[in-house]
Amino acid sequence: MNRRDFFGAGAAMGLGMALNSSTNFAAAQTTAETDRRAEAKLRISSQLGPAPGKNDAEKLANMKKYGCEAVEYHGGCVGKGKEHKEMANDAGLEVSVICWGSCNGDLCSDVVEKRQPGIDALKRALETAAEMEARGVIYVPAFNGQTKLTNQEIRKLLLEFMPEVAKFAASMNTAVIFEPLCRMEAFFLRQVADGASLCRDIQRIAGTSDDNPGITVMGDFYHMDTEEANDMGAFICAGKKYLKHVHLAGGVSNPRRTFPGENDRNYVDGFRGLKYIGYTDFCSFECGCAGKDKEEAFKKTIAFLREQWEKA
Amino acid sequence: MNRRDFFGAGAAMGLGMALNSSTNFAAAQTTAETDRRAEAKLRISSQLGPAPGKNDAEKLANMKKYGCEAVEYHGGCVGKGKEHKEMANDAGLEVSVICWGSCNGDLCSDVVEKRQPGIDALKRALETAAEMEARGVIYVPAFNGQTKLTNQEIRKLLLEFMPEVAKFAASMNTAVIFEPLCRMEAFFLRQVADGASLCRDIQRIAGTSDDNPGITVMGDFYHMDTEEANDMGAFICAGKKYLKHVHLAGGVSNPRRTFPGENDRNYVDGFRGLKYIGYTDFCSFECGCAGKDKEEAFKKTIAFLREQWEKA
Repeated sequence: MNRRDFFGAGAAMGLGMALNSSTNFAAAQTTAETDRRAEAKLRISSQLGPAPGKNDAEKLANMKKYGCEAVEYHGGCVGKGKEHKEMANDAGLEVSVICWGSCNGDLCSDVVEKRQPGIDALKRALETAAEMEARGVIYVPAFNGQTKLTNQEIRKLLLEFMPEVAKFAASMNTAVIFEPLCRMEAFFLRQVADGASLCRDIQRIAGTSDDNPGITVMGDFYHMDTEEANDMGAFICAGKKYLKHVHLAGGVSNPRRTFPGENDRNYVDGFRGLKYIGYTDFCSFECGCAGKDKEEAFKKTIAFLREQWEKA
Repeated sequence: MNRRDFFGAGAAMGLGMALNSSTNFAAAQTTAETDRRAEAKLRISSQLGPAPGKNDAEKLANMKKYGCEAVEYHGGCVGKGKEHKEMANDAGLEVSVICWGSCNGDLCSDVVEKRQPGIDALKRALETAAEMEARGVIYVPAFNGQTKLTNQEIRKLLLEFMPEVAKFAASMNTAVIFEPLCRMEAFFLRQVADGASLCRDIQRIAGTSDDNPGITVMGDFYHMDTEEANDMGAFICAGKKYLKHVHLAGGVSNPRRTFPGENDRNYVDGFRGLKYIGYTDFCSFECGCAGKDKEEAFKKTIAFLREQWEKA
């Protein structure tokens, strides 16, 4: 009898000996949680930067060799979706997401004329994401210094233009993915819960479905190290509906933002959150390497992460 | 065999048949979670306003009669701790917290001279809380319109003056309790996760202990209805260490902010979060009453909440 069977049987027995409907309800929730844990998977992706190899082809081949299932492209792929998808598929990989960024903060700029071109550029990125069958496009409303708008003004503005963009994304089965950053990089949108709350509000206006909201959020273990008091809670705040991507990186202690396992950052609590929500999307490297042998470090960090996942 | 014994035995068996140390670790975490759920309690408190009765003595007597364990006083009790504690104790109640508020936003005012008197006033409130053996003093940094400082400036300022206040509170075994509010009332500090993150940063500077950090956060089901995408995640973000109080109130739909059960607000997900962290502090009414018979409504809302707790 494995863990899943055991807890499954436990929940069934719990139902059998239930005292009342409330207990039944609670037991059913426990069963659902156990099922979600069993469904959850650590599916690893990587940007090209952290992957070992002399060129992109070598990097993609090494990703596959060491157990990655997908590649995360940078914004340079926009408009060239077909060739980038082929390049990934040829190596036996999917495309996880496009790491697009803030477009200089144009969409939330205090200079009104910059906004619409920014929105149009995001739509082009979403089209490429759809073409590559990627989960979505990572979007940062503004890095520090890119807008004079306040927190309140940026949030209000996002609720104005983002519902239509979410509908556009959902129509192609892809999504905008908000990336919360630490305060050293962005004063607006620092926590996963805040991103999830934004997603909920935008989805309500857009009227998109829960299966395909078109507007989602991610968590980055580096930024979360500064901003989140609890990684598990942060991921549960987003839930399976809104959490569409995770960045793997070390924490803020020395060496900063290198491969997981190269500093003291712990992933168990966060992975426990991913298991709780039944996460099956990608966890993707966006980090440096402290070790001298990058290929060895890549192999090692993946083994470390799998161990952390088992512990979760 | 009750649920706790069953899951306890399950976890023990899980340990016995563990395949490796990672599985052991995960099983031990599951056991710890089961223990925390068993320890968690729905301990009800109320402000005097929502309690039925013609005067304070009648209100306190009715609270006790219908199952409350504590009273939450307003700021008017500051400096009169002894008599307020006696009044509560005479009715068989504890004092949960003091609902103090923002002191006109003075502590985070753009008018620098207002700040120190505000800090001093908060310390007087903490002294009274300690005298009443209350969990702490609810503090709102600023309601909308009370300060011209930005989000970033308020956060920075809190990190400057609050560590010393946290140490002062902890020295008397009580705490400042940040209250996140919905955006209609405050633009700064809208989510439990943000409050928890503030607590962590302040505690690091203060150097207070995990058992008695002196700086904590609460969740209010009314405000959370607007701001949180997931109540359970929000409470887990704070954890047992930082979550020191909960306000019970209906959601934003009609009738707004009345007794739980009088509108469609659901408490199961939030209570599941409280059970997850092993919460044993108070949940306290701060709401209106839509019903005509307040005593009947009070009885009914408590029964409703106990049912929601069982379901969680």
